[in-house]
Amino acid sequence: MAARRTLRIGLIPGDGIGKEVIPAGRRILEALPASLGLKFEFIDLKAGWETFQQTGVALPEETVSVLKSDCDGALFGAVSSPTSAVKGYSSPIVALRKKLDLYANVRPVKTVVSAPKPIDMVIVRENTEDLYVKEEKTFDTPNGKVAEAVKRISQRASSRIATMAGEIALRRQKIRAAGSPSIHKGPLVTITHKSNVLSQTDGLFRSTAREALAAPRFKDAGVAVEEQIVDSMVYKLFRQPEAYDVIVAPNLYGDILSDGAAALVGSLGLVPSANVGEGFAIGEPCHGSAPDIQGKGIANPIATLRSAALMLEFLNEEEAAAKIYEAVDANLTEGKLLSPDLGGTATTEEVVQDILKRL
Amino acid sequence: MAARRTLRIGLIPGDGIGKEVIPAGRRILEALPASLGLKFEFIDLKAGWETFQQTGVALPEETVSVLKSDCDGALFGAVSSPTSAVKGYSSPIVALRKKLDLYANVRPVKTVVSAPKPIDMVIVRENTEDLYVKEEKTFDTPNGKVAEAVKRISQRASSRIATMAGEIALRRQKIRAAGSPSIHKGPLVTITHKSNVLSQTDGLFRSTAREALAAPRFKDAGVAVEEQIVDSMVYKLFRQPEAYDVIVAPNLYGDILSDGAAALVGSLGLVPSANVGEGFAIGEPCHGSAPDIQGKGIANPIATLRSAALMLEFLNEEEAAAKIYEAVDANLTEGKLLSPDLGGTATTEEVVQDILKRL
Ligand SMILES: CC(C)[C@H](C(=O)O)[C@@H](O)C(=O)O
Ligand SMILES: CC(C)[C@H](C(=O)O)[C@@H](O)C(=O)O
Repeated sequence: MAARRTLRIGLIPGDGIGKEVIPAGRRILEALPASLGLKFEFIDLKAGWETFQQTGVALPEETVSVLKSDCDGALFGAVSSPTSAVKGYSSPIVALRKKLDLYANVRPVKTVVSAPKPIDMVIVRENTEDLYVKEEKTFDTPNGKVAEAVKRISQRASSRIATMAGEIALRRQKIRAAGSPSIHKGPLVTITHKSNVLSQTDGLFRSTAREALAAPRFKDAGVAVEEQIVDSMVYKLFRQPEAYDVIVAPNLYGDILSDGAAALVGSLGLVPSANVGEGFAIGEPCHGSAPDIQGKGIANPIATLRSAALMLEFLNEEEAAAKIYEAVDANLTEGKLLSPDLGGTATTEEVVQDILKRL
Repeated sequence: MAARRTLRIGLIPGDGIGKEVIPAGRRILEALPASLGLKFEFIDLKAGWETFQQTGVALPEETVSVLKSDCDGALFGAVSSPTSAVKGYSSPIVALRKKLDLYANVRPVKTVVSAPKPIDMVIVRENTEDLYVKEEKTFDTPNGKVAEAVKRISQRASSRIATMAGEIALRRQKIRAAGSPSIHKGPLVTITHKSNVLSQTDGLFRSTAREALAAPRFKDAGVAVEEQIVDSMVYKLFRQPEAYDVIVAPNLYGDILSDGAAALVGSLGLVPSANVGEGFAIGEPCHGSAPDIQGKGIANPIATLRSAALMLEFLNEEEAAAKIYEAVDANLTEGKLLSPDLGGTATTEEVVQDILKRL
């Protein structure tokens, strides 16, 4: 029997329903069949609004250093934001992405159960720059306050995110070629930008992405490349979602597009993401901390379970990932034990039990 | 009989189908019943990519000065963008908005014929600042090029756009109170921002808008105010579009949201906009120059006809505007003469004829 690989996974539940779904993510990893040769160790870590209220820091140094030195990957739940700006508080997930150089945010959006339109796309969002550099200042002028923020786009970050998008397009094509049914004929990467207004910043993103995707590695494998201006991209996302395979975008457009795409599949509670860097990945459900349903035990765990699978994919454990995806898809296809966001009445626990059974 | 008011209207067809729809806008204004007491004079003006190719300038000084000194309003068609950055070229409509201080971009999105969900909202987009100040620079660094753009948000612009949103909410409420059927119970303004990341810029937009909308004029009339983070706004736009009445947003989010909202009503060919300043308005269909159908005579003129009506509204000619809306709605409700974007086979000319007949 092959030696078992041990993966050390940081668990950062955060706030609200983060605390209800991250334990579900842990359980599915623990329940993976031994035949996969995987062992998990879990390390509980803190971050979020509650942590800030208790300690004055939203992202403790220890969380960052443990992730950096002791972990192979992590699961992040969700964090609440204060309802108005609080001095010293800023989003820990945005900070984590930068501190660990998790330069890609990957969000697959796919319909399983029959939807008006079948959708199978991945949004690949640049995760470290754009307006998320958070360099802001405020002036007083005779006409009142004026605030400015920097939108920064670099050739380096644009090139690596476009390359990641190309790799994902290739990987998806390989899975299709292996016989998986698909709505797509060939691999396609759509570059999203607003270079008709931002000719330098988005212009740089666009030309750099074009260049990266023109590499023989992608070209020879038939990866088609097209562009959409971001406003038109949102329009098309809703009119012809079936047309898109891999969408690559700067940070802010990627943030907006992935929520838009999530709306197409019925619930944010279904949509996973992974924050990916060199040899490290943090799985993160796309939903927020959902204070309205927190503590009721009815949060949909599927976004987190899929995020755990997505994390495994980027840690090169594709077989284990596939097991989780299949178990989740089977639960959805049967459609008997669904959480309230999907029109069902099942609790988080019932959904988790049903999916574990199918592993 | 009352003296006739003469309105001088600049016509800027621009490129592509702009040249096919702006003449339709002119014809509907000319065809308004004499009983309304309105007379129109039209002035042909140039701008766009073709103008740039002929003269080296996308927005001739003459166009700006004639609009400023000789016109009460204008209709703008659409302009093509070059496929990659061209030195000296930049979007004439973005420049016009700034030069004439047309600080609001107003985009009503409404279903007429039965849609899966009835929608009746207006997006009020700030039109002069945000990333549209187009202050960009590019550096060379050891790791390649880095480009930066300024996102600027001022208290002054945020306050006046929020006030405009409040006024529009009041006006819509007045029309409802007069007995017009509506899906909304009361006036609601939704402020869209991303202050969880951009605490200073979007934070300023948010707090200023809240303040402006807390004025007794709005509060006493029952205008409710709520907020949505932009990514969540796009999600909600697609999940519960019926919930929104007036949405106010900084320039870029407004651009993206209005294309998203347009997708909900079936075609960009239906959606009008007006660029509005003090006592001046430019009607502008939301669609682009559509090079793929240009010259075929099949462009949908409705977005332009509605934009002409919207322009009239902001020139205080609400009765004339209502006539145009009714004629357009009657054409859509009957559904016999529809252009191809709506699944019909009618030409631009046939649609225009049908609507003129109903005036
Ligand atoms: C919570 C927020 C800062 C975050 C973001 O904007 O990246 C969220 O919307 C996301 O997409 O993970
Ligand atoms: C053409 C483009 C510059 C413009 C904009 O971004 O404002 C368009 O999308 C619009 O909405 O009028």
